[in-house]
Amino acid sequence: MTTPQRAITLADLPLRDDLRGRSPYGAPQIDVPVRLNTNENPYPPSPGLAAGLAEAVRRDAVSLNRYPDRDAVALREELAAYLGHGLGVERVWAANGSNEVLQQILQAFGGPGRSAMGFEPSYSMHPIIATGAATRWISGAREDDFGIDPDKAVAAVEEHRPDVVFLTSPNNPTGTALPLEVIARIAEAAPGMVVVDEAYFEFARTGTPSALSLLPDNPRLIVTRTMSKAFAMAGTRLGYLAADPAVIEALLLVRLPYHLSTLTQAAARVALAHRGELLGTVDRLRAERDACVEWLRARGLAVADSDANFVLFGRFPDRRAVWEALLGHGVLIREVGPPEWLRVSIGTEDEMAAFRAAMAAVPVPGARSTRDTPAAGTSGRGDLEAIL
Amino acid sequence: MTTPQRAITLADLPLRDDLRGRSPYGAPQIDVPVRLNTNENPYPPSPGLAAGLAEAVRRDAVSLNRYPDRDAVALREELAAYLGHGLGVERVWAANGSNEVLQQILQAFGGPGRSAMGFEPSYSMHPIIATGAATRWISGAREDDFGIDPDKAVAAVEEHRPDVVFLTSPNNPTGTALPLEVIARIAEAAPGMVVVDEAYFEFARTGTPSALSLLPDNPRLIVTRTMSKAFAMAGTRLGYLAADPAVIEALLLVRLPYHLSTLTQAAARVALAHRGELLGTVDRLRAERDACVEWLRARGLAVADSDANFVLFGRFPDRRAVWEALLGHGVLIREVGPPEWLRVSIGTEDEMAAFRAAMAAVPVPGARSTRDTPAAGTSGRGDLEAIL
Repeated sequence: MTTPQRAITLADLPLRDDLRGRSPYGAPQIDVPVRLNTNENPYPPSPGLAAGLAEAVRRDAVSLNRYPDRDAVALREELAAYLGHGLGVERVWAANGSNEVLQQILQAFGGPGRSAMGFEPSYSMHPIIATGAATRWISGAREDDFGIDPDKAVAAVEEHRPDVVFLTSPNNPTGTALPLEVIARIAEAAPGMVVVDEAYFEFARTGTPSALSLLPDNPRLIVTRTMSKAFAMAGTRLGYLAADPAVIEALLLVRLPYHLSTLTQAAARVALAHRGELLGTVDRLRAERDACVEWLRARGLAVADSDANFVLFGRFPDRRAVWEALLGHGVLIREVGPPEWLRVSIGTEDEMAAFRAAMAAVPVPGARSTRDTPAAGTSGRGDLEAIL
Repeated sequence: MTTPQRAITLADLPLRDDLRGRSPYGAPQIDVPVRLNTNENPYPPSPGLAAGLAEAVRRDAVSLNRYPDRDAVALREELAAYLGHGLGVERVWAANGSNEVLQQILQAFGGPGRSAMGFEPSYSMHPIIATGAATRWISGAREDDFGIDPDKAVAAVEEHRPDVVFLTSPNNPTGTALPLEVIARIAEAAPGMVVVDEAYFEFARTGTPSALSLLPDNPRLIVTRTMSKAFAMAGTRLGYLAADPAVIEALLLVRLPYHLSTLTQAAARVALAHRGELLGTVDRLRAERDACVEWLRARGLAVADSDANFVLFGRFPDRRAVWEALLGHGVLIREVGPPEWLRVSIGTEDEMAAFRAAMAAVPVPGARSTRDTPAAGTSGRGDLEAIL
């Protein structure tokens, strides 16, 4: 005799205690005309690139019954060539998005009894992935301008001695790039691995150096990148890193075998072959970003300097109301980062015009341009037009 | 002044202690004429299927700058329809290969201070993924015929109280399917989650029931599947599972957002649409498998009953020598499973003929058809021809 089907809930399952009560990560996936919420590149691949992808898939499809190259050697060689800095295949690794790259780093160098530290506000997946990898998270602080003070950061690293330090440059959600000297000082002080998350590096202002140049002197340094942003390949899910060859050896111990599909490897190689076209959108996005910063500042709002393809702006005592009002105008941005701030991804010229029009039409009670208390702000309440 | 570049090794890095001294998992990827080592389906997708994949990629390429559907809803709906048993999207989950599915299960229900148990010899990735997810591994035992004795298994589960139990049916590398009654009894005794890994289910002999039929009465039961084997899509990396909706909710807490690329989702859906063609190879492979078992037994070797697309055979006091000799004939099989046994994946008619020809030509010192000690075996030493 069978037991009748029981209706159970998540609370009835033997879930890990530290996951209880949590909500799944993720921005709402809402179908609206203007999506400026997940820092995607708004320019789709060209028909020529689409044809190249289709041709590569047709060619490789006949071997899809076979497992992929487990170590993705050809792709890693081409990623190394793209990165330059004298890197070769033995110093480059790739996985399904930089999230998986970061998870593998934490599985190898974090884990039970170990800790990881970041300087917040920063990429909110860092602590989430650390939790998923059973690594204790230590929250360090950024300055008021969202930069990192090297003396304070070194002191924090020396106090907490984290096994993994995350630095993000340009930082998400603030857009802040870190000077190499700051990274070098923290790397010198850190007892364990130091990860510089450069997901948005290609958008940095001209002359911003990459932490890749620090690798030769820092065997515990890891620089991560992604094809989801400047390369306009978010749907392909390809993250990668550069590090000492010994770091790659460590990751081989924790990566799931055949983690990177034949299709992903093929698509990423096609994208690299078309990088002129794909990265050709970066200059337009940087120009739109700078214009967006200027426009928001001209309207009296606080805006963080940005080296990325998004802009953090505020401050809104009720940021939720602003976010919802923009959504009402068909413009989806992101409610993320420190309280009172919102983040807008940089879209096409038309999308940014729609964002500006929506912002101009949205009532913004109590918005202010400084980080002071409301009493010291520029405005009491009123809509954005009234403030300007 | 910069420090000169230091040559470091993995031993110099702050690797997790439990990973020190380990080697990366994986069968050798050797380019030989006959590859019968990783249980792939030897039949490649047809030109029609390849064209369908290319067309799907061309269609979806224009949105590759956008992140994929984070919850892969359309794919999960179609997987549920394929599985039947009244399943819907809310009871099905998918990830990059069943390895990632298993890792997510361990991240949600295993982890520090928790344990997972399997009955060995079994899929060697289970303990590796458990280690990667910081979950203590408990090794249970199978019987001499590679089956599981339910009384002993229940006693072992009651003694160790693992948080996750892995059952594999058909089992890799032995090919052994489990009766539903055994699974049901263990599920009843288990204090935590029970995972039935059915990666090879489609190859089971006619009438073998799936553990999917146990799901309605067992909210802590999870059945995993893959498109890497019968579906001939190893290169696509698509694993999936069926379970109570609350289990899916738990996995949403640990899955990396956007873990499943647009291309993977598209390719898996095309494969499902072509399942008549893809699964049409299963009957041929089952016939070849049964013929292989018969041929090996007729030659006096010990051969495990197989419900999968591979055959475990032995016993060879020096199995490495046999493996190498076959490789010398251009036939790559797998040195895996209990000592003295080897595993051959079922290939095409021609590949199996090549395997038989190589086996006939290989000297097999001391091979014997029983599990007794060498003194009680059928033969002292000599090559395989001499034994027959």
